[in-house]
Amino acid sequence: MSLLENIRGPHDLKALDGEELTDLAEEIRHFLVHAVARTGGHLGPNLGVVELTIALHRVFDSPADRILWDTGHQAYVHKLLTGRQDFSKLRAKGGLSGYPSRAESEHDVIENSHASTVLSWADGLAKANEVLGRWNRHVVAVVGDGALTGGMAWEALNNIAAARDRQLIIVVNDNERSYAPTIGGLADHLATLRTTDGYERLLSWGKELLDRTPVVGRPLYESLHGAKKGFKDAFAPQGMFEDLGLKYVGPIDGHDIAAVESALRRAKRFHGPVLVHCRTQKGRGYAPALEDEADRFHTVGITDPRTGEPLRPSAGTSWTSVFGDEMVRIGTERPDVVAITAAMMGPVGLQKFAAAHPGRVWDVGIAEQHAATSAAGLATGGLHPVVAVYATFLNRAFDQVLMDVALHKCGVTFVLDRAGVTGTDGPSHNGMWDLSVLQVVPGLRIAAPRDASQLRAQLREAVGVDDAPTVVRFPKEDVGPDIPAVGRVGGMDVLARPGTGDEDVPGAEGADVLLVAVGTMAGVALEAAELLAARGVTCTVVDPRWVKPVDAALPALAARHRMVAVAEDNSRTGGVGWAVDQALRDAGVDLPVRTFGIPEQFLAHAKRAEVLADIGLTPAEIAGRISAALRTTEPRRRASVAVKENDDA
Amino acid sequence: MSLLENIRGPHDLKALDGEELTDLAEEIRHFLVHAVARTGGHLGPNLGVVELTIALHRVFDSPADRILWDTGHQAYVHKLLTGRQDFSKLRAKGGLSGYPSRAESEHDVIENSHASTVLSWADGLAKANEVLGRWNRHVVAVVGDGALTGGMAWEALNNIAAARDRQLIIVVNDNERSYAPTIGGLADHLATLRTTDGYERLLSWGKELLDRTPVVGRPLYESLHGAKKGFKDAFAPQGMFEDLGLKYVGPIDGHDIAAVESALRRAKRFHGPVLVHCRTQKGRGYAPALEDEADRFHTVGITDPRTGEPLRPSAGTSWTSVFGDEMVRIGTERPDVVAITAAMMGPVGLQKFAAAHPGRVWDVGIAEQHAATSAAGLATGGLHPVVAVYATFLNRAFDQVLMDVALHKCGVTFVLDRAGVTGTDGPSHNGMWDLSVLQVVPGLRIAAPRDASQLRAQLREAVGVDDAPTVVRFPKEDVGPDIPAVGRVGGMDVLARPGTGDEDVPGAEGADVLLVAVGTMAGVALEAAELLAARGVTCTVVDPRWVKPVDAALPALAARHRMVAVAEDNSRTGGVGWAVDQALRDAGVDLPVRTFGIPEQFLAHAKRAEVLADIGLTPAEIAGRISAALRTTEPRRRASVAVKENDDA
Repeated sequence: MSLLENIRGPHDLKALDGEELTDLAEEIRHFLVHAVARTGGHLGPNLGVVELTIALHRVFDSPADRILWDTGHQAYVHKLLTGRQDFSKLRAKGGLSGYPSRAESEHDVIENSHASTVLSWADGLAKANEVLGRWNRHVVAVVGDGALTGGMAWEALNNIAAARDRQLIIVVNDNERSYAPTIGGLADHLATLRTTDGYERLLSWGKELLDRTPVVGRPLYESLHGAKKGFKDAFAPQGMFEDLGLKYVGPIDGHDIAAVESALRRAKRFHGPVLVHCRTQKGRGYAPALEDEADRFHTVGITDPRTGEPLRPSAGTSWTSVFGDEMVRIGTERPDVVAITAAMMGPVGLQKFAAAHPGRVWDVGIAEQHAATSAAGLATGGLHPVVAVYATFLNRAFDQVLMDVALHKCGVTFVLDRAGVTGTDGPSHNGMWDLSVLQVVPGLRIAAPRDASQLRAQLREAVGVDDAPTVVRFPKEDVGPDIPAVGRVGGMDVLARPGTGDEDVPGAEGADVLLVAVGTMAGVALEAAELLAARGVTCTVVDPRWVKPVDAALPALAARHRMVAVAEDNSRTGGVGWAVDQALRDAGVDLPVRTFGIPEQFLAHAKRAEVLADIGLTPAEIAGRISAALRTTEPRRRASVAVKENDDA
Repeated sequence: MSLLENIRGPHDLKALDGEELTDLAEEIRHFLVHAVARTGGHLGPNLGVVELTIALHRVFDSPADRILWDTGHQAYVHKLLTGRQDFSKLRAKGGLSGYPSRAESEHDVIENSHASTVLSWADGLAKANEVLGRWNRHVVAVVGDGALTGGMAWEALNNIAAARDRQLIIVVNDNERSYAPTIGGLADHLATLRTTDGYERLLSWGKELLDRTPVVGRPLYESLHGAKKGFKDAFAPQGMFEDLGLKYVGPIDGHDIAAVESALRRAKRFHGPVLVHCRTQKGRGYAPALEDEADRFHTVGITDPRTGEPLRPSAGTSWTSVFGDEMVRIGTERPDVVAITAAMMGPVGLQKFAAAHPGRVWDVGIAEQHAATSAAGLATGGLHPVVAVYATFLNRAFDQVLMDVALHKCGVTFVLDRAGVTGTDGPSHNGMWDLSVLQVVPGLRIAAPRDASQLRAQLREAVGVDDAPTVVRFPKEDVGPDIPAVGRVGGMDVLARPGTGDEDVPGAEGADVLLVAVGTMAGVALEAAELLAARGVTCTVVDPRWVKPVDAALPALAARHRMVAVAEDNSRTGGVGWAVDQALRDAGVDLPVRTFGIPEQFLAHAKRAEVLADIGLTPAEIAGRISAALRTTEPRRRASVAVKENDDA
């Protein structure tokens, strides 16, 4: 591993010759396969960009030149070449981030790992260079073909192309897929570009034709000239990129370092926006990845590097699979139920639905806005769409949920996987804002199931609502055992209450604390209640099931307690806790309320359990803070109970 | 006006001959000019689509066929042809909406008047027709060239183009501008298409060439065939749309009814996605609009229809102009301050900045996502960007504000014009969610200035923050007189307090109610305080100036009152009221809190003052509800004050 170990920074690459570079690429692949096998992480995408990353760091001078990655999950090689070769704690607490991180390196710029942002970042950085007169600085954006299906990429392309004399280099890392194979008209167009060889030959031929046969060439040339299109453009299918005003270079074999370098140097000399089209192969050089059609090597857990097989396969059932299986059944019963995914058919659990109900599921690309609004169209057309996305990505479609789905009272169900703290992917993958931002959407209803049975039941309730948007949210990882209800108040399940448990009216009795547990906080809340019971504090624990709107029965139930506590795996700010507080205020129930959720900050990468412990979403912390609050708040109920006891005595 | 009056629905159009149609178009233009002059509304866009709308309703059978408008401000002619000819209360309470409205007509589908949504709606509706086997139904989406610069449009185009056998007709209403002239690579490409005549001639020539001169035509044909591109595609600059897989028809003169009809009938026969490119002229047939280069006739107030001059010109100063003037000064002092608009240079008040500081303002098109993320790039590159948008449109960029600007601690200032209730534009133009959804963004700070002086001061404070996003929000309409502070507590201005006003420590005295007034609610709160004083209820009125984060001094100040009330021109849900409540809870101040804001519903069009009255954001309503709340809540402070008075006695 001598070559790689000697690369302390990009400058060390520049002295290597062609053979050494080939050897370095091999060393890097070997390193990636073994390092990622030990920790888990993004493997396939990084194996695909080894040569491309080497070439980029040889041609450009980072950090003066900016090399930007979309998404950052393809930046492992970049890390290795910029002084970060300790992958032993990759994505673990205190270790390297799985994405670029400004705290790690001056070579890193974009930490956000939502797709399709890089061209906008690049446009801003290039404009800043221009305004500040840094004429010799270059900005290079590496973007996957999948990321180009996102609307942001289009907005940026339109702007980048408009400035014909502002240099900006776009490298399209075209591996024909994001998670799933890239779809749509753009993918077809890229395929056209990819499968065409001989541009340069055709061009030469065209120029010759013009010179030799003016009778044919001249009117053709003039027609095209009149159309303000260059001769070259009409003959060579650079197509839409040149139509927009971007110089197109490619396609380039992204695994040929010399070819990539040559193309990048050409781009670097050009005074204007350039697109360099590199064909790469995801999982390059690693047989298990190349042989796997389901692209399971996009992200891996801890694996045997030789076979690629998981070493710690999950024994449990994921929330995702419970959803996926129930969707198949619902689809069988209801021919009007259809589904949408944004380039994540497998990860969101819709493969079985797609197989069972062909023609009723659509992969729209990395295009959450289109997912939401086309769902409004589907609903208006008489169907009931289920849009399955990661919770963090629905933020991309907030305006569409509000303005297209909710304003038009469309029966669309959004299923939010990976809601709450997700952990190792770091700040941009936590699904910790959905319960807050969706609160403002008029008419929208949110279900937060606590277990598999509830997920199945609430999914069915959600697709039964045809005049408003519904949301069902659940976390990453495996689903635990079912948590039975011991009673019902309004639409809420009572999970625990003080007393013998044989009361006629469930939940009608009072206690010190009403503990409202949102979704998977049910288990945490039950444990907290036990800890409190040990301290002599009585609790009623309820799962509201539907957390928006707040159950109409909640204020009256709360009024039979001294205080109310709400626990949710979501930002405290604006979440269910605030909504419960408002509902109590509106009912004139001015009790102390304490909310437990994620503090208003971005969460660094670590395991989900570690993060929950760090932010105090644990039974011990919740119980402790409730005890403390009870001590400082007025003991009104206890006082009145005491009076009553005195009366009895 | 006999022809128009006899059009009760689209079917009545079908019997008219060419000459009658021309007359009808003239009648419609006359109607629009005079009707809109009386009420105000969108004039220019509707004058541009008279012939196009007539042709659409002759070729298609609405509502079985779906005719969709992006944005809905170009649907006045559609209203006239679908049974809605009473424009006397256009955009007024109880009158016709300025946009399509499902409640008004079965011919209306999309009420959302944010741009670039229509292709996604159309895709969903076409898929629903397919799933439900409604093979003879057509979906037609009319979209402006400006709206095509929005990312959603790209996401949809990519999906629409992917389904080669699903018919969907896209009519590009190309008038070369949205509010401002359309910008970017797409605009240049459309210009190429527009300025090219003789496609068909060129095509014929090309085919002939192939037949006649195999020595030239054959290798050319084969090269292109090898490129999987059709012969036609290479010669005729339909360009990027055909590259994506859409059949391109055009350009068509959008004011030639027969030509438009012919193109639409061709499109209707085609089994796949078709784009019909219509060139139209905004303001067509109305000299004042055509002669106005600033496009002031996009939307007009009440005008003299003959001259186009406003009959009730505003005597006051708009919030927008206060912002615009201060930006010019800031730009002079600070060369690092730059600005971004999303296709609304004039409406957001950046023209003067653009004139004074050329090269430092960018119009990015209708592309809020790109506006936010390119601003993050500008900030990372060493500048301080000010992104000026209407509040309602920032929802489009929520994820980018969170993940690009805030996560990366970028000093970007968002200036939100038209915040709060805007009124006549109806539900999709109210800026009533920004104070809620932005609450969750870590590190972000929000200023809500109460008057012009505060706007100038807080804008300067905002552009002085270089390590976090800042937001400055203000409403539509004219700014009132300055409201002086009588004291300061922490960073908050005390606007009124009980007593003589000569206390040494401003605001340190207690009262019954602490009334927190957000931005322009200052005036309303002061009036409410006077009404309460007349009832013997004492109030302290504070303007927190910066509403996020909640001022650290607020809880202690609140604790000297019996209750807290918060008034904001924003959704109650998740807004400043909730944040204040949380801050009090966190400080252990469990006082009654009452929040006054916009209820969780979409607001129908009416004047701003009418809406505020309807939802209770008035001094009388606020005072009344505070009085009622005081009666039902425990009179703790009064009790202790009474005890104290007894002690003194």
